[in-house]
Amino acid sequence: MKILITAGPTCEDIDPVRYITNRSSGRMGYSVAAEALSRGHEVVLVSGPTRLDPPAGADLRPVRSAGQMCEACLEVFEDCDAAVLVAAVADYRPAEPLAEKIAKSHGELTLRLVRTEDIARRLGQRKGRRVLVGFALETAAHRARAESKLDAKNLDAVVLNDPATFGAEQIEAELLVRGEGWIAETRGTKLQLSGQILDLLERLVSARR
Amino acid sequence: MKILITAGPTCEDIDPVRYITNRSSGRMGYSVAAEALSRGHEVVLVSGPTRLDPPAGADLRPVRSAGQMCEACLEVFEDCDAAVLVAAVADYRPAEPLAEKIAKSHGELTLRLVRTEDIARRLGQRKGRRVLVGFALETAAHRARAESKLDAKNLDAVVLNDPATFGAEQIEAELLVRGEGWIAETRGTKLQLSGQILDLLERLVSARR
Repeated sequence: MKILITAGPTCEDIDPVRYITNRSSGRMGYSVAAEALSRGHEVVLVSGPTRLDPPAGADLRPVRSAGQMCEACLEVFEDCDAAVLVAAVADYRPAEPLAEKIAKSHGELTLRLVRTEDIARRLGQRKGRRVLVGFALETAAHRARAESKLDAKNLDAVVLNDPATFGAEQIEAELLVRGEGWIAETRGTKLQLSGQILDLLERLVSARR
Repeated sequence: MKILITAGPTCEDIDPVRYITNRSSGRMGYSVAAEALSRGHEVVLVSGPTRLDPPAGADLRPVRSAGQMCEACLEVFEDCDAAVLVAAVADYRPAEPLAEKIAKSHGELTLRLVRTEDIARRLGQRKGRRVLVGFALETAAHRARAESKLDAKNLDAVVLNDPATFGAEQIEAELLVRGEGWIAETRGTKLQLSGQILDLLERLVSARR
């Protein structure tokens, strides 16, 4: 099958020099992509800036901002059987990015932020028979937030994990599947979790055929 | 002689996941450090997060935020003959970093930013006979801003360059020296500019002895 995978952080420019980003290393998404490729699937990897070499054989689409990532995803999703949204997409971006570097002045500065495109929601609206898996990264009220994300965005499954896993080799994660509840709790490597995600993806896609 | 060199960007946390940073790659600072080491000088390299391998022989002090960089610089400056402040230090940081990840909500968000420690100014106040060189990165009113930076922070020289050089191998820069004016305009590699900076540093330090 053909799988869209997003990975890495996004960068939202404040001015030509400064930007807002997050601690995502891209490792989890690249690991899911590598596992999918090793199973013979086709992979489109839409990736924010990372320090990683893309897995050989992936159709890499490098992007910088949430807006660019959304555009790239909408472009390829229709042609895919499933999508796994691993990227840590910025929820907010500066309302008015500046063309000139902000000059330092004394005192405070207020930065007005607006919501970025909600990529999971946008894909959820047009998913048809495709399988859509999201990630939830929460420091509090973990399960409740993952459950409302599943519903609000029309996802088929949510992988819940903790920011402590950013950049790490090991990961602790829980897997929520629509109609099945919380089916698995994983403590292991990102590669092991990638295997579980691909098992689930293959099962859900073949059930819909 | 013993030289303090700062390099790279700093990262200012918004919450456990998100942060503000800038496009500095660290290459210019690491290049100045490598050049200084190759001339037999001692180097303390206070560096924000970069993807670079530190030059062999440097006393590397890795830091994340402007506050941490300031602390590390104040700690070692007294023991140095000169400092070259190449790092693109964040001028602003979130006023109140949050312990929990900000939950997404609809609509806008306002981020209140406050000034970070002004490292150049702090070192300028306590420099004594040490030589202090700063970098100015400007997209507008280039020379005027560099000139006021030289005075306001009690620097001995300012290297003026453009954000276009971030991450690049080539650099365009101008060199302003106290009492001498604009002495050089460089178009070349970061290594060539590093050579010019070290020539200047050696000249100024030996003139003070």
